Amino acid sequence: MSSLSIVGISGSLRSGSFNTSLLRYVSTILPENVQYTELSIADIPLYNADIQAEGYPEAVAAFRDGIAAADGILIVSPEYNYTIPGSLKNAIDWASRPPAPSFSGKPVGLLSASTGIFGGVRGQAQLRYIMFAVNAIVMNRPEIYVASAAQKFDADGILTDQTTKDLLAKYVDSFMDWVNRIGRK
Amino acid sequence: MSSLSIVGISGSLRSGSFNTSLLRYVSTILPENVQYTELSIADIPLYNADIQAEGYPEAVAAFRDGIAAADGILIVSPEYNYTIPGSLKNAIDWASRPPAPSFSGKPVGLLSASTGIFGGVRGQAQLRYIMFAVNAIVMNRPEIYVASAAQKFDADGILTDQTTKDLLAKYVDSFMDWVNRIGRK
Amino acid sequence: MSSLSIVGISGSLRSGSFNTSLLRYVSTILPENVQYTELSIADIPLYNADIQAEGYPEAVAAFRDGIAAADGILIVSPEYNYTIPGSLKNAIDWASRPPAPSFSGKPVGLLSASTGIFGGVRGQAQLRYIMFAVNAIVMNRPEIYVASAAQKFDADGILTDQTTKDLLAKYVDSFMDWVNRIGRK
Amino acid sequence: MSSLSIVGISGSLRSGSFNTSLLRYVSTILPENVQYTELSIADIPLYNADIQAEGYPEAVAAFRDGIAAADGILIVSPEYNYTIPGSLKNAIDWASRPPAPSFSGKPVGLLSASTGIFGGVRGQAQLRYIMFAVNAIVMNRPEIYVASAAQKFDADGILTDQTTKDLLAKYVDSFMDWVNRIGRK
Repeated sequence: MSSLSIVGISGSLRSGSFNTSLLRYVSTILPENVQYTELSIADIPLYNADIQAEGYPEAVAAFRDGIAAADGILIVSPEYNYTIPGSLKNAIDWASRPPAPSFSGKPVGLLSASTGIFGGVRGQAQLRYIMFAVNAIVMNRPEIYVASAAQKFDADGILTDQTTKDLLAKYVDSFMDWVNRIGRK
Repeated sequence: MSSLSIVGISGSLRSGSFNTSLLRYVSTILPENVQYTELSIADIPLYNADIQAEGYPEAVAAFRDGIAAADGILIVSPEYNYTIPGSLKNAIDWASRPPAPSFSGKPVGLLSASTGIFGGVRGQAQLRYIMFAVNAIVMNRPEIYVASAAQKFDADGILTDQTTKDLLAKYVDSFMDWVNRIGRK
Repeated sequence: MSSLSIVGISGSLRSGSFNTSLLRYVSTILPENVQYTELSIADIPLYNADIQAEGYPEAVAAFRDGIAAADGILIVSPEYNYTIPGSLKNAIDWASRPPAPSFSGKPVGLLSASTGIFGGVRGQAQLRYIMFAVNAIVMNRPEIYVASAAQKFDADGILTDQTTKDLLAKYVDSFMDWVNRIGRK
Repeated sequence: MSSLSIVGISGSLRSGSFNTSLLRYVSTILPENVQYTELSIADIPLYNADIQAEGYPEAVAAFRDGIAAADGILIVSPEYNYTIPGSLKNAIDWASRPPAPSFSGKPVGLLSASTGIFGGVRGQAQLRYIMFAVNAIVMNRPEIYVASAAQKFDADGILTDQTTKDLLAKYVDSFMDWVNRIGRK
C-alpha cells in the first residue's frame, strides 16, 4: 500500500495558538505511512480578482499546489465572531479559483479549539458549509471541539489532557478511513 | 436636525467591482443632510493577535475609527463560496476587538450584487449572522439582491436599470429610518 | 404608561421540559405592568397549504392572533439536531402566512436550555435566522444559553441556580428596553 | 449485482406540490435495478419525548423503518421561511432518536423547487446542515434548484422543461454513484 499525503492548515496566525498546537499534536499521531505537510496561510494577500488576472502570487500558488497534491486535508481553526477567521476564508477563496479548484473532491477533516466553553462549535459548522461550497467532502463524525484549551495544553503548547488525546486517536482512525473511502475511489 | 454620518464598505477589491459600483450609486442618493465616507479594507493585513498586541496597524485603526464615528453603516458585498469574502471578514475581525468593538450597537444595512441569478442571497445571510456576532443591529427589510448585474450596470460601472434604482430609493428611505430609530435612542 | 403585552412560546412539548420551566421562570420576573400570556404549539397541525385554503384551524388562529396582539415575544426552545424542533418551526410557518404575517415587525427575545454543555447555542442561531425570514426584530444581547440544565432546576422544574437568575434579571431588563425601543415607535 | 433500495421524501403536504412532482419525476428515471418507495410525513405527529417514551407511533415507526432499510435517500423539499418546512424537520427529529438513528451513515441527495427565482437555495443549505446533524452523508454535486417551477411543470404536475430533465438525468447518475460509493463500503 502506497503512502498517503496529508496536509494540515491552521486557521490562526498567532504564534502561541492553541489551534496550531492541536494541529501539530494530530500530525504526530498520523499513521507511519502518511507524508504530512503543514501549509501556511500567513503570506497570502487579500483576494483580488485583478491580482489573480496577472497570475497567482507565490504564496497562493504554494497553497493551491499543496492542497491539490494532498490525499486528505486537516483544517484546525479558531472561531472569530461565530465563524472562521477572515484570513482562513481568504486562503480558501484563492484556492477555489480556476482552472483547478484545489479543494474539489478532497476528503477533509475539521477540528477546533477555544479557551471558552463552546470549543469553536459555531465556527466549525460555518467551515463545513464553506467546504461544501468548494466541493470538499467533509467527514461527519467524530466531532472534535476542544473547549477550555488553556487547561489542556501546557505553557509550551503541548497537549497534556488524556481524554482529548484519546478522542484524537479515534478521530485520526476515522479520518484515515474517510481518506481511503473518499479519496481513493 | 443635525447631520448624520454614514460610512460605506465594499467587500470587493476588484477595480471594476459591481458591488463597489452599487455602493457608490447608493451613496449618491442618500439624503442631503448625510455626511458620507467610504472606508477601504484593501490595506488591512491578515488578523494576527500578536500584531494586535503591538498596537493596531494604521489601516486597521482608520477602519475602526471610521466605523466608531458613524451613525450608520452600509455594507455591499459579493458572495465568495456561498459567504462573504475572507478579506471583508478579516476587516470585521479587526474591528471587533477591544477596547471598543467598532460595530457594537450600530445600525447596519446590507446589499449585494452578482452576475449570477442569486444576487448574493447566501452571502448576505452569512453577513447578517456575522453582524449579530459583532452586535450590529441589521435592518431586515427591504432585502436587496442585485442579480444579473452585468445587465444592470454599463461599462463604466454606472447603474442603468430603473427597477433597481426604484428599489434602492425605497431601501435608502427605510435605512435612514432605521438609523434614526436604532442609532439615536 | 400603559401596560405591555408579552407572549411566551416554548419549543418543547415534553411535560417536564427545562425550556418550558425556563420560560415560566422568566414570566414571573417580568415587570408588574406587563400582561403575560403563554401560547401553545401543541395542537397545531402540520402545515399544509390545502388546509390553509379552507381557513386557519382553530389552534392556528389562536396562535396567530396571540402573536399579532403582542407587544413583544419571548421564545424559549430546545435544540433538536442542531436547530429548532420541527414542531416550533411548523407553528412559525403557519404564523408567517397572509394576510397578516404574525411576527412581522415584532420585537423578539430568544433563550434556550439544554442538559448538555452547549446550552442550545446552535439552535438559537438558527432560530434567529428564521426570525429574520419572518421579519421579527430579535434582540442581540445579552445571549442566554442555559447549559447543564439538570443541575440548575430542581425535580419540580423550579430554577435554583442563582447565577442563572441574575443573568435572567438582566436579560428581562434589556428585553423590556428592546420592546419599548422597537415595538412602540 | 443486487438491486438497490431508494426511498424518496417530499417536504410538502400540498396535493399539487411542485416538489412532490419533482420527486415523482426523478423516481421514474432511476435505474432499472432500483426498488423505489415514497415515504410520507403527512401522518407523523408533532415530536414529543413523552409520546416517544410510550413507543413510536405507527406513522413514525413506518417512516423510521423505511429510512433504515434504504440504501439511499432522496429528499425534495420546498423552502418555508428560508429553511425547510417544520413538518419535514419534525419527521427528521423523530427519525433521529434512539435506539437506531435512521439517517446515520446513509447516502442522501437533496433537490428543491420553487415558483420564485431562488429555487429553494436557502432551504436546501439548511437541510444539508440538518443532515450533518443526523450523520447522513449528503452528495455535494450537482446542485439542483428548480426555479420558476410554474413554467416547468404542466397543470397535471408533469415536468415539461427539457433543460431540467437533462440536469436531472445527470443528477441521478451522480446520485447512484454516490450511493454505491458511500452506502456499500
